[in-house]
Amino acid sequence: MIFVTRKAHFNAAHRLHNPDKSEDWNRDVFGKCNHPNWHGHNYILEVTVAGEPDPDTGYVIDLGILKEIISKKILDPCDHRNLNMDVPFLKGKITSTENLVKEFYHQLKEEVENASSEGAVLYSVLLYETERNSAEYCPYRRIN
Amino acid sequence: MIFVTRKAHFNAAHRLHNPDKSEDWNRDVFGKCNHPNWHGHNYILEVTVAGEPDPDTGYVIDLGILKEIISKKILDPCDHRNLNMDVPFLKGKITSTENLVKEFYHQLKEEVENASSEGAVLYSVLLYETERNSAEYCPYRRIN
Amino acid sequence: MIFVTRKAHFNAAHRLHNPDKSEDWNRDVFGKCNHPNWHGHNYILEVTVAGEPDPDTGYVIDLGILKEIISKKILDPCDHRNLNMDVPFLKGKITSTENLVKEFYHQLKEEVENASSEGAVLYSVLLYETERNSAEYCPYRRIN
Amino acid sequence: MIFVTRKAHFNAAHRLHNPDKSEDWNRDVFGKCNHPNWHGHNYILEVTVAGEPDPDTGYVIDLGILKEIISKKILDPCDHRNLNMDVPFLKGKITSTENLVKEFYHQLKEEVENASSEGAVLYSVLLYETERNSAEYCPYRRIN
Amino acid sequence: MIFVTRKAHFNAAHRLHNPDKSEDWNRDVFGKCNHPNWHGHNYILEVTVAGEPDPDTGYVIDLGILKEIISKKILDPCDHRNLNMDVPFLKGKITSTENLVKEFYHQLKEEVENASSEGAVLYSVLLYETERNSAEYCPYRRIN
Amino acid sequence: MIFVTRKAHFNAAHRLHNPDKSEDWNRDVFGKCNHPNWHGHNYILEVTVAGEPDPDTGYVIDLGILKEIISKKILDPCDHRNLNMDVPFLKGKITSTENLVKEFYHQLKEEVENASSEGAVLYSVLLYETERNSAEYCPYRRIN
Repeated sequence: MIFVTRKAHFNAAHRLHNPDKSEDWNRDVFGKCNHPNWHGHNYILEVTVAGEPDPDTGYVIDLGILKEIISKKILDPCDHRNLNMDVPFLKGKITSTENLVKEFYHQLKEEVENASSEGAVLYSVLLYETERNSAEYCPYRRIN
Repeated sequence: MIFVTRKAHFNAAHRLHNPDKSEDWNRDVFGKCNHPNWHGHNYILEVTVAGEPDPDTGYVIDLGILKEIISKKILDPCDHRNLNMDVPFLKGKITSTENLVKEFYHQLKEEVENASSEGAVLYSVLLYETERNSAEYCPYRRIN
Repeated sequence: MIFVTRKAHFNAAHRLHNPDKSEDWNRDVFGKCNHPNWHGHNYILEVTVAGEPDPDTGYVIDLGILKEIISKKILDPCDHRNLNMDVPFLKGKITSTENLVKEFYHQLKEEVENASSEGAVLYSVLLYETERNSAEYCPYRRIN
Repeated sequence: MIFVTRKAHFNAAHRLHNPDKSEDWNRDVFGKCNHPNWHGHNYILEVTVAGEPDPDTGYVIDLGILKEIISKKILDPCDHRNLNMDVPFLKGKITSTENLVKEFYHQLKEEVENASSEGAVLYSVLLYETERNSAEYCPYRRIN
Repeated sequence: MIFVTRKAHFNAAHRLHNPDKSEDWNRDVFGKCNHPNWHGHNYILEVTVAGEPDPDTGYVIDLGILKEIISKKILDPCDHRNLNMDVPFLKGKITSTENLVKEFYHQLKEEVENASSEGAVLYSVLLYETERNSAEYCPYRRIN
Repeated sequence: MIFVTRKAHFNAAHRLHNPDKSEDWNRDVFGKCNHPNWHGHNYILEVTVAGEPDPDTGYVIDLGILKEIISKKILDPCDHRNLNMDVPFLKGKITSTENLVKEFYHQLKEEVENASSEGAVLYSVLLYETERNSAEYCPYRRIN
């Protein structure tokens, strides 16, 4: 089994805010990440596909095609945007890194797997919010 | 001459916008950086002090003290904030990286030089907006 | 399943030495890492928690709280210290990166899991001794 | 279970080309990676061994010995060479990152496991072709 | 004075070879860098412009425009190419990092300065051949 | 003028301590950096030579030779050592990063300039103590 990974970058504004809760709850739980006038990040995204290389090309997926799918599905709606206000597939979600990777995975899955070698799967989506904080969604790695 | 550098990080929202110009001019000149709902960055800041080490301590400046001055003067007002809306010393400025380093330099200069060894100066302030884009203000490096 | 990771840094002195063996054995097996007057590293630590995000916060664990637990349990006893001489939970252990990650995992487990979402686990502890050498303890990843 | 990783670097020329296909097919499928006069990369290699630390040394494998095995088996034949023309174990293979990690794994496996603690295995081989593109061969990580 | 820097990447094959000297001289002087079947690198390029920000835009140079000039003048002829064989402005030159930065500087100077604010200059061109080896051409930094 | 830089790494123990002052003064001034049982760092060293490339080789200095000089003069005495106890040329000095770069510069100067092209000079020595703290010695960069 081979795992190929493509890295991408985007810059976006966001804030952590649960609209079903009070202002006080939000300030208390999310602290400075709840600041009303937004803050932002240089997000780094890593998308991993797992499968066997195609014998003709030696590729699990052409990383140039993976780059284009990531651009269309994630960077075009998110780069230089406000994740809470501008991104249709994030409407109503808390924009924690955990929630972002889960939504990004579902945005990418079908088109990535169609472009990959026979039997390959979208293995994981990893997102760095800062150099020190990251989250990864991987439905194939288990804890029991 | 010794040059000591301390690196710091902050996350902020901003947009490039010149309020003296029309919406069309702003969109045309600043492109996606002018997007109205903001975007943001993980800014990386490098502050350099030049001088001779104090003979008792071996320090040009105690980098723990430099860290505290950077926190007080730059990170406290800017981190997890909106650079256009929330930072008193940036009010009315276009928040280009060029303008940010110049303002940061002037915010830091007096307190940094007071905490440094005899004759030392605040040499430069460098800011990465993204991994690929940066600006540095250095009044001591010449081009003629 | 979401995996969230927090990175931390500490600087410490150590040497590789097995007190149950002769000086010759130690010099022969550990080479320059056995040098008697110590050497040291800028260790980089990555702590990963696996679980489902809490629906109210979107967090598997608040990374600010994870940061505090890492500070209390690992950085306070280890940073700017001698790993062989100063750290109670490493007394009598060979301070190889392998042994460090195992001990760090057990120091962190209970408090990290108490602070995490329902059912989440401390998934792994990864430590870079140098940019080129690292070890990871992960009781959930199998080789059969 | 502990996973220890050693990182190494080498610089090599290559091109993507399937000799069983036409020039047109190759140009169409591989694009600029098929350019006839070669291009090249600073490859970064990460080799991971999984096992239990030896109680006498605290080592899964002495990373100095792992470094020597990587040098002999991978860097000596590949560094400052042409991967398509000069490397015996790659003759006739398409030099995609996917194929490289698979071949490197098989080159390393026996000697690495002989030098490791009782029961340890060569867990994975990861190769960065560029900072943004990588592939990993890991026979122990599953997708079902 | 503000210094703005844009970073770019390209992958290329090359070898060090002085055609006016014997094969023996070349092998002796350049060692493995002279290997006949080429090797290659992921080059990292940093281009710095020095000047005063334009008051309307806050820019010394629009880094999007600088990116396009670098692409046209350097990346288009060099990326995924053989620096010795394929690049018109390097014909007959030894492709040492020192010579590359000098030639790149002269390729970029006129168009970069035309796109910059009044009085700004192309200050320097820096090129990493590997993570550990680099060269910079800067006609403004002096040693006496 | 071309500036070529070679990067190197070493791991060492140290503490900040002025033996002419009291224990209280040292603890007060140096804080945790004064801890008696030492701490340590993965130091990163960057050595820069400035000059004109030799026309036969295209080199200001052969970076392979610069690597050997750095190994002999700096890494052999310092790597996996205690900077306060084991390094002859640091005896009696406070091992601040400022003092280290000054001493390293003087250790390297003669041999580096002898190995460089006609008229080239050792331009600067830069040392990272941590990813966030560094010092550089450069006798050619002025502040007036």
